[in-house]
Amino acid sequence: MRFIGTRDKGDVVLVGMPLDLTVSYRPGTRFAPLEVRKASDAIETYSPYLDADLEEFAIGDAGDVELPFGNLERSFSSIKAELRSLLDSGKRVLVLGGEHLLSFPVVQVYKEFYDELVFVHVDAHTDSREEYLGERLSHACVLKRVWEENVEIVQVGARSGLKSEFLFLEKKALFFSPFELSLDFLSRIGKKPVYLSLDVDVLDPAFCPGVGTPEAGGVSVRELLKFLSALRKLNIVGADIVELSPLSDVSGNSSVLGALLVREVLLLLSLGL
Amino acid sequence: MRFIGTRDKGDVVLVGMPLDLTVSYRPGTRFAPLEVRKASDAIETYSPYLDADLEEFAIGDAGDVELPFGNLERSFSSIKAELRSLLDSGKRVLVLGGEHLLSFPVVQVYKEFYDELVFVHVDAHTDSREEYLGERLSHACVLKRVWEENVEIVQVGARSGLKSEFLFLEKKALFFSPFELSLDFLSRIGKKPVYLSLDVDVLDPAFCPGVGTPEAGGVSVRELLKFLSALRKLNIVGADIVELSPLSDVSGNSSVLGALLVREVLLLLSLGL
Amino acid sequence: MRFIGTRDKGDVVLVGMPLDLTVSYRPGTRFAPLEVRKASDAIETYSPYLDADLEEFAIGDAGDVELPFGNLERSFSSIKAELRSLLDSGKRVLVLGGEHLLSFPVVQVYKEFYDELVFVHVDAHTDSREEYLGERLSHACVLKRVWEENVEIVQVGARSGLKSEFLFLEKKALFFSPFELSLDFLSRIGKKPVYLSLDVDVLDPAFCPGVGTPEAGGVSVRELLKFLSALRKLNIVGADIVELSPLSDVSGNSSVLGALLVREVLLLLSLGL
Amino acid sequence: MRFIGTRDKGDVVLVGMPLDLTVSYRPGTRFAPLEVRKASDAIETYSPYLDADLEEFAIGDAGDVELPFGNLERSFSSIKAELRSLLDSGKRVLVLGGEHLLSFPVVQVYKEFYDELVFVHVDAHTDSREEYLGERLSHACVLKRVWEENVEIVQVGARSGLKSEFLFLEKKALFFSPFELSLDFLSRIGKKPVYLSLDVDVLDPAFCPGVGTPEAGGVSVRELLKFLSALRKLNIVGADIVELSPLSDVSGNSSVLGALLVREVLLLLSLGL
Amino acid sequence: MRFIGTRDKGDVVLVGMPLDLTVSYRPGTRFAPLEVRKASDAIETYSPYLDADLEEFAIGDAGDVELPFGNLERSFSSIKAELRSLLDSGKRVLVLGGEHLLSFPVVQVYKEFYDELVFVHVDAHTDSREEYLGERLSHACVLKRVWEENVEIVQVGARSGLKSEFLFLEKKALFFSPFELSLDFLSRIGKKPVYLSLDVDVLDPAFCPGVGTPEAGGVSVRELLKFLSALRKLNIVGADIVELSPLSDVSGNSSVLGALLVREVLLLLSLGL
Amino acid sequence: MRFIGTRDKGDVVLVGMPLDLTVSYRPGTRFAPLEVRKASDAIETYSPYLDADLEEFAIGDAGDVELPFGNLERSFSSIKAELRSLLDSGKRVLVLGGEHLLSFPVVQVYKEFYDELVFVHVDAHTDSREEYLGERLSHACVLKRVWEENVEIVQVGARSGLKSEFLFLEKKALFFSPFELSLDFLSRIGKKPVYLSLDVDVLDPAFCPGVGTPEAGGVSVRELLKFLSALRKLNIVGADIVELSPLSDVSGNSSVLGALLVREVLLLLSLGL
Repeated sequence: MRFIGTRDKGDVVLVGMPLDLTVSYRPGTRFAPLEVRKASDAIETYSPYLDADLEEFAIGDAGDVELPFGNLERSFSSIKAELRSLLDSGKRVLVLGGEHLLSFPVVQVYKEFYDELVFVHVDAHTDSREEYLGERLSHACVLKRVWEENVEIVQVGARSGLKSEFLFLEKKALFFSPFELSLDFLSRIGKKPVYLSLDVDVLDPAFCPGVGTPEAGGVSVRELLKFLSALRKLNIVGADIVELSPLSDVSGNSSVLGALLVREVLLLLSLGL
Repeated sequence: MRFIGTRDKGDVVLVGMPLDLTVSYRPGTRFAPLEVRKASDAIETYSPYLDADLEEFAIGDAGDVELPFGNLERSFSSIKAELRSLLDSGKRVLVLGGEHLLSFPVVQVYKEFYDELVFVHVDAHTDSREEYLGERLSHACVLKRVWEENVEIVQVGARSGLKSEFLFLEKKALFFSPFELSLDFLSRIGKKPVYLSLDVDVLDPAFCPGVGTPEAGGVSVRELLKFLSALRKLNIVGADIVELSPLSDVSGNSSVLGALLVREVLLLLSLGL
Repeated sequence: MRFIGTRDKGDVVLVGMPLDLTVSYRPGTRFAPLEVRKASDAIETYSPYLDADLEEFAIGDAGDVELPFGNLERSFSSIKAELRSLLDSGKRVLVLGGEHLLSFPVVQVYKEFYDELVFVHVDAHTDSREEYLGERLSHACVLKRVWEENVEIVQVGARSGLKSEFLFLEKKALFFSPFELSLDFLSRIGKKPVYLSLDVDVLDPAFCPGVGTPEAGGVSVRELLKFLSALRKLNIVGADIVELSPLSDVSGNSSVLGALLVREVLLLLSLGL
Repeated sequence: MRFIGTRDKGDVVLVGMPLDLTVSYRPGTRFAPLEVRKASDAIETYSPYLDADLEEFAIGDAGDVELPFGNLERSFSSIKAELRSLLDSGKRVLVLGGEHLLSFPVVQVYKEFYDELVFVHVDAHTDSREEYLGERLSHACVLKRVWEENVEIVQVGARSGLKSEFLFLEKKALFFSPFELSLDFLSRIGKKPVYLSLDVDVLDPAFCPGVGTPEAGGVSVRELLKFLSALRKLNIVGADIVELSPLSDVSGNSSVLGALLVREVLLLLSLGL
Repeated sequence: MRFIGTRDKGDVVLVGMPLDLTVSYRPGTRFAPLEVRKASDAIETYSPYLDADLEEFAIGDAGDVELPFGNLERSFSSIKAELRSLLDSGKRVLVLGGEHLLSFPVVQVYKEFYDELVFVHVDAHTDSREEYLGERLSHACVLKRVWEENVEIVQVGARSGLKSEFLFLEKKALFFSPFELSLDFLSRIGKKPVYLSLDVDVLDPAFCPGVGTPEAGGVSVRELLKFLSALRKLNIVGADIVELSPLSDVSGNSSVLGALLVREVLLLLSLGL
Repeated sequence: MRFIGTRDKGDVVLVGMPLDLTVSYRPGTRFAPLEVRKASDAIETYSPYLDADLEEFAIGDAGDVELPFGNLERSFSSIKAELRSLLDSGKRVLVLGGEHLLSFPVVQVYKEFYDELVFVHVDAHTDSREEYLGERLSHACVLKRVWEENVEIVQVGARSGLKSEFLFLEKKALFFSPFELSLDFLSRIGKKPVYLSLDVDVLDPAFCPGVGTPEAGGVSVRELLKFLSALRKLNIVGADIVELSPLSDVSGNSSVLGALLVREVLLLLSLGL
């Protein structure tokens, strides 16, 4: 498999956004777009999980957005400009991060196009702090920032955070399923437009060692694949896969896993068209 | 544990076949025989899974077959000559690969000795292509090649392949259990002679990072050990363990796992005598 | 999270004991105290598993005991002196190893203070040899040595050892649950003082690659966390976490896992006060 | 050796500044202060190169400045505040980076205290761009930024940059010695206050693999140590060691080398008092 | 720097040939074209060694030749077809390997176009065996095979081989300089067309750990760069850079070095036009 | 190359002594005998440095001495018994460590056979402490212990130690050449029996990353090979190669280097017969 459609070709488009600025523990998510594209050589185009094949769909690759290192404001501008351009031409987009903070500017643009957007946050971390080390724009705050945009939020899989964050999610989220990838929220969403934000650290680090903030006790790849397959009932209009950090897995296996997840989510976006 | 019986000593014999020619992604299976033997120091001879001990049986080590790199034809000749020599003297053989393609010449020889041979293929990949990059003799085609030899085939654990390969196996295999290590085929085989071909990539790469083509979403070691224990009901006359690639796991843990699997399969071969 | 209370501050105290002398396969546990403290930066103080926060309790860090490499006798003296000093002042102690042999001198001191002590051994290995390579003081013999001190023993999770060791545990242990982390022993212990000895190799190496003697087929982190949570019903007066070997996991993930386990066990010790 | 004097103790003070924001290729310099302090265990306090011993001098460790990830402006404020506080109390400071950009705010503060400051830039890269990816505040521009502060500059060791940068240095630098660590500038400086900025990538990556932007063809450690020893004739009032990136050297050797260089530069600062 | 000119654009063309079949020790050279292109991001286009800039020249990238793994004959056909096509259109070609054996089919085609071709072999190994493990077509025999094509050969840097190979080179080579990169052959060649074959293992493994057969005692990168610069006096019409094996250097530094060498040789080819 | 002569065959014998008890920083030398033997596959038997071939001499391999981990006293007994047995039968022995402390018991036995023995210590460290962490038997004291046996000592290459150790060597050694591998001692020794003790950390860690205590600033492999070649003028009756720690070099290159050094020293021992 190679994601080599041209930008304008597809109804569904992959775009890399190597934002890697606010991670405090281990950096390196900037390399995910490059390494995941490279690793896609090791993956078949056919998914036996969804019984669908990438080659049956029109899927484009818009390459990577160039981001100035050290300047968050200009990075956000570039991210938003690219997104608007893609959504203007009617595409469904899969953003390949980069760090989780990028979901915030991406969702701001999606909200312009989809007023009823629901944000499904699959993540080991609650990401719901008011601020982190004095910064409101941090990967540790992204779910709170998204919620402040009047976007309904769903959280599944969280197993790390402040107690106050767990309480926030219990109160404010449309649905909150700590530890487990529960699917009980599907009926509550119906056909509302959904943005799926998949932080690969929801997996146990055994399955994906290449992450910036490994949190033991996560789900298995099998559980995640089963969860993703069930999402085909939703109306997914956009998605991201974030926090993959190839530097932290010298075997390269995490990047190959990333390519597999890209395939599954591209198919989810395509099957819904 | 050390596999240091001499070649002629045992009823069951281990032989290394470091074939490493047709793998397209990450090479390195040539080092498995050496590294697995080395790692066997870290493993006990007693298996609590099978309640049996290697020291109770006569098990020999025939060393590694020397293979000329770059010449597939001569490699096949050497492999077959060694196999014939071992089967002629009445041994049951565990071949330690090397890449999966070696099952093909090995089974060709086994078929000469066991006409009703059933080939049990435990693998993440369907390996049933007609050709791969223009080559019929490729690790991606080995199950198809074996089937063409009029050997009945069983496939368990496949989760990657072309759609046409999945369809082929559904139609032509004696039994096909994608994703899971189902045991429902045991009764269909009865006491027919069985050749067990164990590609370690059936495991999730979390459990065995040292493989050439990691395919996420696999089974756990516990599931595999349970599956192997159940096979003691079969009449296993030969086996291979293939595709372990020590280079891709700098921790060395994959090779220690390989030694554990060698112990289990050597015991399976011995218990059936 | 950082474990930076001073030694005298807490009711519960962490102390590092980098003993690394008798391991025969891969050494390196000496680095665990340093690396786990470092990795604690990546961990929250709040445990959603126990719904408790380290910051609610008085927890001290006594630093590492300095041990002379190459001299086991003097190492034991230093370990015992430190332990006695801590127990004299009424603390509950979590010892961060180092290799498993250190449980022996530690338990000898604990036995002076708690006559009815029960030793709960969570480990992939039976550790019940009479001697190993001619040495009675070896990490492979620690459970046998502890039992000889008239301490009742519980073993859960063993999947590697001599057949005679399995038989010994079946006969002599208060409770023995090979393979699985059974909790059926809880009622038998009641409120007797418990020393919990947690060898991280009870986990499958997939979840904790950084161990000295990796033994495939272990439990998952989720199973271990669930097991630990259930132990809050016991009267745990001391504990150790041993055999973590950071050198064998270049990703650093095993040390982050170690910090998580330290948090859980510190909370177990604190909740029982 | 351990750098464990308290902040207020020494005439010479080590301070960590884990700035890691504008590096475009491989991030990770944020870990250098932690890892170098840890690796200092492996180093003697006595330098046979300078025939001097750290224990003969009063040397303090001010710990690390806490920096908000993703916010360059606030990071600069924190860096400057810490520096001013240290210089106000008359200390000579060795800054342990972090990325090279930090030399800019550090030198801005030094310039307040030492009007005739000379900046000696030891680096594989010219670092003299007007801007990089649209940013003036980038590690690739630091020498140009420093020069704009009316600080005289010396460059030795550059072997990578734009042609225009090489021309800039030939024209504007007090002294420029590409490729080699020439010492011919010593007499031109006399007793002017010197700030030494040592980017470890001046070394060939063979000697220091743990760098963010490896540039082959560098000097050996022996050449660097000889160069540093010769600098004792200068009046060095401040220094930094930057761009060490422990993540890129799994052996840990680069961090041990970093500790050795810290020792040499701390002694240079101390010998001049 | 990125090598992204299109195939037809340049007078000088880069082409990847990931042949990786006959290496007996550590495989992995197949990944060099991909990784070196990726690493070229870390390299400037300007060479201060040659005082020339890639952007001043018309340089194309023909991508990688697709090679069937396991079939040497078909691989040679593909290699030769690609070469002929490029030479037919008047290009000078830099082949990026891949293993050293590829020089043989490449030179066979070059010989068709340049009858007086001189082959300059820069390598740690003599590569002059009659056969290796029974194969005449092996990377260990490539210089002998080239010589048999009536091509004059120059060898510099050899420090490993059979005694008979050293004797062969002393007798038959136009010039032989074991151990050192002597330049004394330049005047003997004059303006004859030269094919430069650069095996990166001529460097000490300290400078380039990512090789298949590391041979300690090699030259430094500085010595190699100086040697290459001096070659600008020759009429170099083709070249290869071979045996770089990215898998064996987890830091990635060897691939960055590879990109630097690609730049230097592309400039050598361009400066001679 | 493979060192596979039997123990009794050779006039010169290789024996592994995986002592790994007193190293305080990074352990792992216990794996050197195994890994160096394995890596010998990558090395030719012919040395172009000495113009001699291992196959011309009778060289045996006595395997590894089995050592009880954790018991220094019993380890010394085993080491001495093996040595005495080999020297009794008139062999010259190359001991492959293991840590440097083993030179002490080995030299004690050699002294029984060669009264005028000169000990040539090639090492980055002075190893001349009276005690280390309270232990007189430590790798940091080995040269002092040897000197106390009334053995004349030569030290070359030291660049790390206490000032008092440097002073000790200046006063008491027959010859002391810090930093450099000076050969000026050759004439002073004449034909006295020499024991060569080669600690591979005399090399810069660039050339041999796999060491326990890396000390930057060392010599190159080329300098070491030249030094060793010059020693053929001496009457070398025994030797060791110590402190190679394969775990610290995931590339495996350090072990290949170790095999090369083994070849050179075996040839030195053989050429002198």
